[in-house]
Amino acid sequence: MDALVIHSAGDLRVEDVPTPPVLTNQLRVRVRFGGICGSDLHYFQHGGFGTVRVTEPMVLGHEVAGVVEEVGPGAAGFAVGDRIAISPSRPCGLCRFCQLGLQNHCLDMRYYGSAMRTPHVQGAFRREIVVETHQAHRLADGLSDREGAMAEPLSVALHAVQRAGPLLGRKVLVTGCGPIGALVVIAARRAGATQIVVTDVGGFALRTALKVGADQAINVAEAPQALAAFAADKGQFDVLFEASGNPAALRGALDVLRPRGVIVQVGLGGETTLPLNTIVAKEFDLRGAFRFHEEFGIAVDLLNQGLVDVKPLISATVPYRDAGRAFALAADRSQAMKVLLDFE
Amino acid sequence: MDALVIHSAGDLRVEDVPTPPVLTNQLRVRVRFGGICGSDLHYFQHGGFGTVRVTEPMVLGHEVAGVVEEVGPGAAGFAVGDRIAISPSRPCGLCRFCQLGLQNHCLDMRYYGSAMRTPHVQGAFRREIVVETHQAHRLADGLSDREGAMAEPLSVALHAVQRAGPLLGRKVLVTGCGPIGALVVIAARRAGATQIVVTDVGGFALRTALKVGADQAINVAEAPQALAAFAADKGQFDVLFEASGNPAALRGALDVLRPRGVIVQVGLGGETTLPLNTIVAKEFDLRGAFRFHEEFGIAVDLLNQGLVDVKPLISATVPYRDAGRAFALAADRSQAMKVLLDFE
Amino acid sequence: MDALVIHSAGDLRVEDVPTPPVLTNQLRVRVRFGGICGSDLHYFQHGGFGTVRVTEPMVLGHEVAGVVEEVGPGAAGFAVGDRIAISPSRPCGLCRFCQLGLQNHCLDMRYYGSAMRTPHVQGAFRREIVVETHQAHRLADGLSDREGAMAEPLSVALHAVQRAGPLLGRKVLVTGCGPIGALVVIAARRAGATQIVVTDVGGFALRTALKVGADQAINVAEAPQALAAFAADKGQFDVLFEASGNPAALRGALDVLRPRGVIVQVGLGGETTLPLNTIVAKEFDLRGAFRFHEEFGIAVDLLNQGLVDVKPLISATVPYRDAGRAFALAADRSQAMKVLLDFE
Amino acid sequence: MDALVIHSAGDLRVEDVPTPPVLTNQLRVRVRFGGICGSDLHYFQHGGFGTVRVTEPMVLGHEVAGVVEEVGPGAAGFAVGDRIAISPSRPCGLCRFCQLGLQNHCLDMRYYGSAMRTPHVQGAFRREIVVETHQAHRLADGLSDREGAMAEPLSVALHAVQRAGPLLGRKVLVTGCGPIGALVVIAARRAGATQIVVTDVGGFALRTALKVGADQAINVAEAPQALAAFAADKGQFDVLFEASGNPAALRGALDVLRPRGVIVQVGLGGETTLPLNTIVAKEFDLRGAFRFHEEFGIAVDLLNQGLVDVKPLISATVPYRDAGRAFALAADRSQAMKVLLDFE
Repeated sequence: MDALVIHSAGDLRVEDVPTPPVLTNQLRVRVRFGGICGSDLHYFQHGGFGTVRVTEPMVLGHEVAGVVEEVGPGAAGFAVGDRIAISPSRPCGLCRFCQLGLQNHCLDMRYYGSAMRTPHVQGAFRREIVVETHQAHRLADGLSDREGAMAEPLSVALHAVQRAGPLLGRKVLVTGCGPIGALVVIAARRAGATQIVVTDVGGFALRTALKVGADQAINVAEAPQALAAFAADKGQFDVLFEASGNPAALRGALDVLRPRGVIVQVGLGGETTLPLNTIVAKEFDLRGAFRFHEEFGIAVDLLNQGLVDVKPLISATVPYRDAGRAFALAADRSQAMKVLLDFE
Repeated sequence: MDALVIHSAGDLRVEDVPTPPVLTNQLRVRVRFGGICGSDLHYFQHGGFGTVRVTEPMVLGHEVAGVVEEVGPGAAGFAVGDRIAISPSRPCGLCRFCQLGLQNHCLDMRYYGSAMRTPHVQGAFRREIVVETHQAHRLADGLSDREGAMAEPLSVALHAVQRAGPLLGRKVLVTGCGPIGALVVIAARRAGATQIVVTDVGGFALRTALKVGADQAINVAEAPQALAAFAADKGQFDVLFEASGNPAALRGALDVLRPRGVIVQVGLGGETTLPLNTIVAKEFDLRGAFRFHEEFGIAVDLLNQGLVDVKPLISATVPYRDAGRAFALAADRSQAMKVLLDFE
Repeated sequence: MDALVIHSAGDLRVEDVPTPPVLTNQLRVRVRFGGICGSDLHYFQHGGFGTVRVTEPMVLGHEVAGVVEEVGPGAAGFAVGDRIAISPSRPCGLCRFCQLGLQNHCLDMRYYGSAMRTPHVQGAFRREIVVETHQAHRLADGLSDREGAMAEPLSVALHAVQRAGPLLGRKVLVTGCGPIGALVVIAARRAGATQIVVTDVGGFALRTALKVGADQAINVAEAPQALAAFAADKGQFDVLFEASGNPAALRGALDVLRPRGVIVQVGLGGETTLPLNTIVAKEFDLRGAFRFHEEFGIAVDLLNQGLVDVKPLISATVPYRDAGRAFALAADRSQAMKVLLDFE
Repeated sequence: MDALVIHSAGDLRVEDVPTPPVLTNQLRVRVRFGGICGSDLHYFQHGGFGTVRVTEPMVLGHEVAGVVEEVGPGAAGFAVGDRIAISPSRPCGLCRFCQLGLQNHCLDMRYYGSAMRTPHVQGAFRREIVVETHQAHRLADGLSDREGAMAEPLSVALHAVQRAGPLLGRKVLVTGCGPIGALVVIAARRAGATQIVVTDVGGFALRTALKVGADQAINVAEAPQALAAFAADKGQFDVLFEASGNPAALRGALDVLRPRGVIVQVGLGGETTLPLNTIVAKEFDLRGAFRFHEEFGIAVDLLNQGLVDVKPLISATVPYRDAGRAFALAADRSQAMKVLLDFE
């Protein structure tokens, strides 16, 4: 069956990839929609990110939903026709970190569409895939497949929110509102934040953030001093979600975050220069947030029950055969948030 | 001006009580609505609760909203005509617990309408009251005075939820859905709980809980075994809010709460016999929740922004001169959740 | 090889029990010393505890140290002659709770010498035993085998201390100073508690607690009001470790525990009547503590480095063939803390 | 009476400074010893640090102990002749952060010997000083005045340890072992850390760290690769205390800190470039630690009870009239840890 295979920067091909047999506790799934993530874009544009490089052909993709076609032996609780979101995360379950409940730090993680290890872990942008039952989360009747494909990035946002601790009644700043930043807005609101301010340099992103619930949007390119209104009494925000990966965004927020404020860094940034004295003197708590584990199930629960609405973030759906166009659109922050590939 | 003064069990009088002058950082407020709390009922029905007894005339009431009539010197930020919810909590600010940020445990607390100390602390069921500015929280234009009077019990529920830790994605059981239990449902949903089951013995209470967002309501009088459906794998709930004060409710929930589950006891109960072995073996975490502090401001924020809806809990509004009827109605769990007194 | 097999209350026999072959990742161990635990005593005296009953012959014992006799395939890091403490805890590693890092709540736990499931899990009071490498923790040269046998009860105490949160600078009350209470004193001191007061009704226990580091010992049988000296300002203790299982001890401590104080219940008690109002009004946090997981390795680390000294708690060593005498002595709180069986 | 007054970089004078009258709740104290802190050195060498500059004459010093000479009205619990350690921290008690229990972030803090605000807050390097009773902590009979003068820097270390959360059984790395780093070693051991490794570039500092309890000392100037031994399985340390303020130390430790490891930054550093991707991918938790509050009382408790030993850190005692020599010695990391001024 067809799959989207990255060979090197700019070289993304539709290729026929065989579907393996369905073994115990496995399901064969017809993939319906797959969201293009920032890391997929990096593989496509640059052949990798940081020190990671694609060194062999790899199926891209890790944000997919589909329908069960075949149920393997022992795969209790699933039936042909079930619509599911598929978690791309497959920790070993046995290592030191899995046994601590920190499966996202598994020493032997196999995460779809990742070149971090070689042989690379093949991804899910393919018309058919075989998954473990623990990866499959059933979608409720009222929820569309498109929304189901949003479960993975929503999980990332939920994990970032979990890392922040309780948000009920808290005042929150989100710097950077690409898809993850916008999903953090949704997740922070769901967790009870009373004030959510977002910053970005793009008008489309900021307007989308307002659509999904932000109370105020600040374009720091146009109004670089606007945040200063929150600097009184050593800072008015309790929590900062840094979702841009831009060092200037992090630095610019330190004055408006109160002492003992929590910074959740969810955007992948590179070398970043920080005023360490400020972190010490205000006793900030800077926490990395990386992927997710139990949050995938929570994401599907929230979607299934209508407790969050991710539809405003789905900017376009493009047939997988037009992947080049889809990737170009996904890279255009002036008009796209999440772009889905249609594998039907 | 008129006030509702309790003299002893059953002896509640409308009396003229003088309004003191307005001093620095104070506001004179025309009270509009006041909610009848369970403790008000206890004073009326029994002259007190536990070992606490009314030993001198005391103005009842601590759940009120009103409008500012006069602004004292230094009371910056307030103007005549401002509509406000009034926090009944006046910690000393100086004692060991205030300096730990635990103001609800203040060694010198003066809480409206409480006979816990003598002289008793006079309450807020009066047509006119003078308050400190730190007690006053402005209501937004779209919010009614009636809803404003709900800020205090909502604060109690929010505090119970804060005591539980993060609820995002958690499965929650609420035993007892009087006004506090129902407000816990609202607060737990706002904090991101994905599953909320309530139990009670009264149909009206259960129907109200469903109205404000519970996913499932169980009448444990009619279906005493229904909870057992959640007992698999040592228990399916992550958090229990015990809001009935009924020992049987607490005991009955232990089988359906998972190991390391959190129990927030918010209902005031008396002597309660518990299977301590179960608490040990399942390593439960039983936490008391008492009153609130910063949650009053959060309650008003949530109400002002429409992030919670407490209107379904307001069962009736009764003129303060008909207090006897109001108290009788408030005591009737078959038809009343929160009953408000109208002081206009 | 010989083992101590309980058949029913009072019927403890020395019997020949075969040693199974050593498989992959296993070690055959010559057991040297085994400590008699309260649960061993209960099996011997009453045939069980609570609702648990011995219904088939079961080797007792779960606090043992010994020397490696044979190293199975793949058991890297171990050599014949290694002296080890043996953890009796064998969680499945795969269930919901193991994958949360809560292995002490494993849904398929096999804990040595326990009749909680049938067939019972055979224990470690035997001259020879085969264990998994993950159960084996090497003893340092300077540490005796007898001390090594204390690793298990020390783990229980360390787990109780971990449940309490940070103790650095905290004021601690320990009610009940049998072996676990005394080990809690040691662990709480090691964790930085600045004040440790113990209560008991037995002079020998109290004197032993002072020997291992308690600052003050109160005989509540002789001086029932002595604790009241700590009641000022709503209570002077930050943390209570309840290690007696006696309802009166728990109740008596509530007045001297400060608001938001933590109660760690580590003693197994039965039906216990508590003033729930006090738990609510002072917002106590009552946490069960049950067994341990990672604390076994920590216990051996602390023992190996001389960071704790458990020798004062070893009251006597008795040959395993005199088990009856050993158990009688272990039951005599007027002269015994921990009694070890000698399996050589 | 004499005081040590800094006028500008290099200009430190002994001057006569009047002692104010003793008011309510105050004590007049004859200062005996005062420790020279890194910030004192910065004022002396550079006239300030970061953007802070001495712009008017200021008495230096904030680590002092002395003896009570006069007891003001209402100063219950103190008597002439009491030997005390003096906390230099005087938060307002009323601001937002004081009321949260975060007094070290007081909006109106007056901390001895600090030029952070103007007029500067005068310090405690003076023969006589008047203090509030809440600043005074009595020293036990067996504790020397010199050790009492160590209470303040010990408080800083204890606060850093509190910021890390529970350390019982944890593996700890301390980078930088000047006085604060060495005190962190003492505090971390007291809190139950089982493994403590220190790094520095100076032999004297490392030898001192071993004297106060570090298990291993690594000279990263001589053996830059030695830390790599701890890099297995994504890192072997649970907690890093960064006490050098050197960006290279922080960066070098990231490979040996396990995922979800905690970094407590207690050394004041300047602009620091960090690999943000690593913080994200390993989900580190980087927390600033600044001064202290309740830890001052804990420090004196620990010293009074002999639960910590700071004597190995007192390198020399120099008469205050030889302040120049004392400051030169304090600046020489090859032979001095803490240098005390003698004010007798």
